[in-house]
Amino acid sequence: MFSLDQRLKNDCVLLTDLTLSQLLLMNDQQYPWLILVPRVADIQEVFELSNQQQGELWKEVAMVSKLLNEEFKPEKINIGALGNIVRQLHVHVVARNKQDVAWPGPVWGAAPAKPYSEDELVEIRSRVLRNISSV
Amino acid sequence: MFSLDQRLKNDCVLLTDLTLSQLLLMNDQQYPWLILVPRVADIQEVFELSNQQQGELWKEVAMVSKLLNEEFKPEKINIGALGNIVRQLHVHVVARNKQDVAWPGPVWGAAPAKPYSEDELVEIRSRVLRNISSV
Repeated sequence: MFSLDQRLKNDCVLLTDLTLSQLLLMNDQQYPWLILVPRVADIQEVFELSNQQQGELWKEVAMVSKLLNEEFKPEKINIGALGNIVRQLHVHVVARNKQDVAWPGPVWGAAPAKPYSEDELVEIRSRVLRNISSV
Repeated sequence: MFSLDQRLKNDCVLLTDLTLSQLLLMNDQQYPWLILVPRVADIQEVFELSNQQQGELWKEVAMVSKLLNEEFKPEKINIGALGNIVRQLHVHVVARNKQDVAWPGPVWGAAPAKPYSEDELVEIRSRVLRNISSV
């Protein structure tokens, strides 16, 4: 049975359920940073999903990439499925800017997270959720 | 018209053309590291490809991920589409091991590349190409 990894639970805020994936917001105000976690048990690599699930996952990644791009006007979208530390399959979609703390390097491991305030969380949650479209 | 970015040309070796993408080997013996570059001009983000091209790209990524997994038996496959430096759309597929120089961090920016010798290049090229399947 699917259950969200404890580290993802600690580091992120659940925004909503998409068709395949849980959509999480990384609780780090340094970057608009979403994470998709397919609700499928015991999967570590994308290719372990069925072809249909892979198609759905990448459709969801494209949808949230476009959403971040339109809402936050970043310099670049970064997509990553690493999993060297948290093995449960999850895909990062991060809006990057030339002024962010890790630019132009990757965000993973770059700088300790700076959590949002309660007010900021309400705002960014709303900016993401009002742009979610079904895929 | 599509033309491979000069930095990718310098850092990589062209292995073959897949249906959508050029398949490159990063010339860095520290990790088995492949890069897919869709042969489509002026694309920076995955979502700028047509839906059909996106489907083809991710099928090719899954195929080479499985290939690296079976041939090199890594601890984890890392997939990344960053493009903060090289803007031409390209997707990294890297076989990671607990003993590699960047583990468990990301490979990008972690350590200067150590190019393969001619003999090593012949060997890894053959290990990859004999496992390519059409997708």
